[in-house]
Amino acid sequence: MFTLPEEFAIIATHFAPLAGDAALNLSDDAAIFTPPANRELVISADAIVETVHFLPTDPPDLVARKLLRVNLSDLAAMGATPLSYLLTLSVPRDTPQSWFAAFAAGLAADQAEFNIHLIGGDTTSTPGPISLTATILGHVAPGTALRRSGAVAGDGLWVTGTIGDAALGLLALRGAIADETGHLAGRYHVPRPRLGLALHGIAHAGMDISDGLLQDTAHLARAQNLAAEIEAERVPLSVAARGADRLQTCLTGGDDYELLVAVPPQQESALKRECERCGIPITRIGRFLPGPLEIRVLDGQGRPHPFAARGWSHF
Amino acid sequence: MFTLPEEFAIIATHFAPLAGDAALNLSDDAAIFTPPANRELVISADAIVETVHFLPTDPPDLVARKLLRVNLSDLAAMGATPLSYLLTLSVPRDTPQSWFAAFAAGLAADQAEFNIHLIGGDTTSTPGPISLTATILGHVAPGTALRRSGAVAGDGLWVTGTIGDAALGLLALRGAIADETGHLAGRYHVPRPRLGLALHGIAHAGMDISDGLLQDTAHLARAQNLAAEIEAERVPLSVAARGADRLQTCLTGGDDYELLVAVPPQQESALKRECERCGIPITRIGRFLPGPLEIRVLDGQGRPHPFAARGWSHF
Repeated sequence: MFTLPEEFAIIATHFAPLAGDAALNLSDDAAIFTPPANRELVISADAIVETVHFLPTDPPDLVARKLLRVNLSDLAAMGATPLSYLLTLSVPRDTPQSWFAAFAAGLAADQAEFNIHLIGGDTTSTPGPISLTATILGHVAPGTALRRSGAVAGDGLWVTGTIGDAALGLLALRGAIADETGHLAGRYHVPRPRLGLALHGIAHAGMDISDGLLQDTAHLARAQNLAAEIEAERVPLSVAARGADRLQTCLTGGDDYELLVAVPPQQESALKRECERCGIPITRIGRFLPGPLEIRVLDGQGRPHPFAARGWSHF
Repeated sequence: MFTLPEEFAIIATHFAPLAGDAALNLSDDAAIFTPPANRELVISADAIVETVHFLPTDPPDLVARKLLRVNLSDLAAMGATPLSYLLTLSVPRDTPQSWFAAFAAGLAADQAEFNIHLIGGDTTSTPGPISLTATILGHVAPGTALRRSGAVAGDGLWVTGTIGDAALGLLALRGAIADETGHLAGRYHVPRPRLGLALHGIAHAGMDISDGLLQDTAHLARAQNLAAEIEAERVPLSVAARGADRLQTCLTGGDDYELLVAVPPQQESALKRECERCGIPITRIGRFLPGPLEIRVLDGQGRPHPFAARGWSHF
């Protein structure tokens, strides 16, 4: 008998069923595909590491979905339509088949939800924590991708959804705060990429919030050497987040995966219409001002909030 | 002052100078590019992990070059032309700036050699070993990619270059064997992707050898349910590898990154001409036979070699 080594058996059993046509059944050296005609391709890669981006106790299917959604959120930030993804897994040698089965089930669920397919990747062992990477491919009409640069003094600063739930969810999973409904942990485990919004011609600039509202606002401001002012009371918080009463965590914690956009006043009604069409809540939380770069957070009386405007950095 | 967090400073200092146009200076959420007209895109992702694929003592510039070349070899296997790449790095928090500088210098050297650019990626911390992923993009004329399936009984089995040097190089770096000239360690550190060969219409099937000659021969045979026979004395070995006298290591060890192709007898002269045009040595080491799947290794007297036909598996 000439059996497949275990590595290839894992790929054939758990990952080949997820493969799109381009993947050549995951048995070749690379995937091949014809790019969609008359479109620009958008591509991004994000890594998540056990203990840094997810907890050893997180269910593998939710880890898989977080990996995909973190990457899908990058496409959402540019206004792109998802197409396919590649996956690299570095996992310990004693990882059980049940882990791969649950992980693949999470991928399958989100492939169906977002209409994407696995087209390639790599599986290796590691003596360290589980380390996962996805590369996501999408497409946009030429010239219509939303960029981080382009905000103008006078633009409003808008965010989708609610802010801070995921950072609070991590605190809840660590036992530091209560989370009776599980809403906060749910937002930490399963981000909600804001795909589908057509903001070209409406927003001047945009990005997804992954490193904290304040730090990511600074990215938009820095690109144009602007200042930005955020009215803390306008920042949309979920019922659970309001209950937690940790504003600083909400404004600086990572993992929101909401969109942050700079919109001129004359496009506000178009913005609201487009968000309503997609069923995505949107809130104006502040505005851009002439530079130099500075991010001010104001309380209900217009006084500066004391906390430092720093988000999450890995180093 | 509103300074960049360290993570973004590392990207701006070390990686932004490597960025191609599509990368948007590595400051956006994703890269955008117009795919080359009338070409198929080829895409692959490979991960390398410290202690598994490279040694903690390996110079960072060589680790960078190995990462790129392992991925470029996947393009070579399909006959594709390299275009660009994305990079994810998970490194410990205390990684010094000098490591990033040396790593980026290795990338820069190979970008120049292979005419590719960095277009995106991610940098994160890890409490474990350094874990690196590259996603490589290339292109081919439609329908001309070399695939793993397609070998036919009667095809010759051919390899480029020499086999086993890298596996012996790892032994040498671990002090298990001598390596007076450094040739073996050099092959382990810096693979040589066999780009540029136009084998469409000449070879029936092909792949790059990453998991060991015998195991990868089995991949080509399995795709068509064929047997294959390898004459051990025909397998091309370098002077250093012949001196080491470890045939089994050469035939089963990983990291060769040479091409392995199935070529019908009537295309042998075309194969030799194409390899000569590219300055790439090529050697016939065996042939495909009717199935069932089996890989036989014969000694100089046509007798079966005793060792097991297994290569490297991560699990």
